[in-house]
Amino acid sequence: MSGAPKPVFVDPLPSWNEGTTKATILDFVRRVTIEDSSDYVPPSERIATFDNDGTLWCEQPTFVQGFFLLDRVKTITTEQPELAEQQPFKAVLENDKTTLATFGKKELVALVFATHTGMTPEEFRTIVQTWFDSAMHPRFHRLFRECVYQPQLELLDYLRANGFKTFIVTGGGSGVVRTVAESIYGIPPEQVIGSSSKTTLEWRDGKPVLVKQPELNSFDDRAEKVVNIELHIGRRPILAFGNSDGDLAMLQYTAAGTGARLALLLHHDDSDREYAYDRDFHFSPLREALEEVPKLNGGHIVSMRQDFKQVFPFS
Amino acid sequence: MSGAPKPVFVDPLPSWNEGTTKATILDFVRRVTIEDSSDYVPPSERIATFDNDGTLWCEQPTFVQGFFLLDRVKTITTEQPELAEQQPFKAVLENDKTTLATFGKKELVALVFATHTGMTPEEFRTIVQTWFDSAMHPRFHRLFRECVYQPQLELLDYLRANGFKTFIVTGGGSGVVRTVAESIYGIPPEQVIGSSSKTTLEWRDGKPVLVKQPELNSFDDRAEKVVNIELHIGRRPILAFGNSDGDLAMLQYTAAGTGARLALLLHHDDSDREYAYDRDFHFSPLREALEEVPKLNGGHIVSMRQDFKQVFPFS
Repeated sequence: MSGAPKPVFVDPLPSWNEGTTKATILDFVRRVTIEDSSDYVPPSERIATFDNDGTLWCEQPTFVQGFFLLDRVKTITTEQPELAEQQPFKAVLENDKTTLATFGKKELVALVFATHTGMTPEEFRTIVQTWFDSAMHPRFHRLFRECVYQPQLELLDYLRANGFKTFIVTGGGSGVVRTVAESIYGIPPEQVIGSSSKTTLEWRDGKPVLVKQPELNSFDDRAEKVVNIELHIGRRPILAFGNSDGDLAMLQYTAAGTGARLALLLHHDDSDREYAYDRDFHFSPLREALEEVPKLNGGHIVSMRQDFKQVFPFS
Repeated sequence: MSGAPKPVFVDPLPSWNEGTTKATILDFVRRVTIEDSSDYVPPSERIATFDNDGTLWCEQPTFVQGFFLLDRVKTITTEQPELAEQQPFKAVLENDKTTLATFGKKELVALVFATHTGMTPEEFRTIVQTWFDSAMHPRFHRLFRECVYQPQLELLDYLRANGFKTFIVTGGGSGVVRTVAESIYGIPPEQVIGSSSKTTLEWRDGKPVLVKQPELNSFDDRAEKVVNIELHIGRRPILAFGNSDGDLAMLQYTAAGTGARLALLLHHDDSDREYAYDRDFHFSPLREALEEVPKLNGGHIVSMRQDFKQVFPFS
């Protein structure tokens, strides 16, 4: 006896638990890609934007770029020992929590400029690449670049397989995230939008080079994420994914377009496998968005605890 | 008698005359794409940047966006008749050459802001799209969007077929060029970098919208083209194509990278089929670049008269 082969359903999102979230994602992608659907969106308009810190990779106990900054402070104070006695470097090196607690935006910006600028973008990328090759997460004892969410890697692949263009829209520095986004997420540098310092074109040894300046070009957070989406992408996303109030404007802007929309917010509620936090994370709190996202067209809260079958690729 | 079928060579650049330029382009692409070549470049690094005005489409008797600006002045002075009696609008409407000759950057910027801002990017795109659907070139009596160079369309296709990502880096407004670049050139909005005004996120009827402001964000010309290449693309191009001194920095920056490079400059020397101009084109002169580009690694002057077998698709 022979018969037609049974159709095989390959789950494109095996690290997502069955439930409302997974069904919502699969249903959305089906509706926008099936040509006779009233929600059909042509491939050129299938723009998906993802926050990075806390959405694609772990942002606790603090931002990955914070660990990078600390190691950069150690490096430059070794090269220039006189800096080690000056603030804000001294408090960072000594982990002087009393003084650190007094630091505001001014000191943070000074630290970023001292450690991230004054060189060409190519020189900076080499520093970043070298750091990512060995820097380890203090709790998971894995490279930071490995501490990414397996369900999100699957979602990015699944969206691209369905004609989406995937972008990162991050408050992190574009020079940092671009260095590793292609190898980690399959997202090329031109599809990474981040915070940036100004650069200037200068001549060195008869050749033009760009030099990163200690001056802010864009802090890619909150409303600025939307401004930068227009500047860099020039189209409104139909899907956006974030995890903090810094992403709320992007989610609202995405949801406010016509037609089918998906605005997803990851809630970190899993202290066993990752972390549980929202309101109290100093750098990137989740307060307003937890209330507002469910009200949006296509707005949905993703629970790490309930929706992620597996958290990290190495789990 | 039978034999092996003869190999058929399909010329990927049929609108380019045989000669040094075509051989240079074909040789460059062969060298960077053949894996055992010492000049091999992985696909992710195959970034090609093209100027638009005068490089991909005709920029005479003046920029396409100049014609758009003129029609927009007519529209807004019809809607707001009091403006028709005020400068700089009055001189534009009356084609008052004496007064127009006194106009500098201040008046031009005022005209651009009055005609290009104060609306959402989506509203602006609709205006641009409608204009391109009917606006005709005064000499060729074809839609402006048809007055593009057939050899360049073939070159863009040829590069993409060989794994290149093609970008436009234009002094023109990104909101104008992005509206038509995908249908004309196959280049999506996020691969068009241009001049831009600032935008702000505002709330209208309970929904977030961006609003174009009468304030310059970036004038994408000369060194700023290189700055924007880093900001938007994050990689140094290996091929760049321009036609004026405004493109020289981009060509120099491209040529100064390591490995095989191609820096092409189109010289408009064909008054019969298009236009002949260089030093004296007020808005975008070609002076220094004509001297400098041949000295660059991979620098090459393209002659429209000699190298273009066909100029426009409709020729």
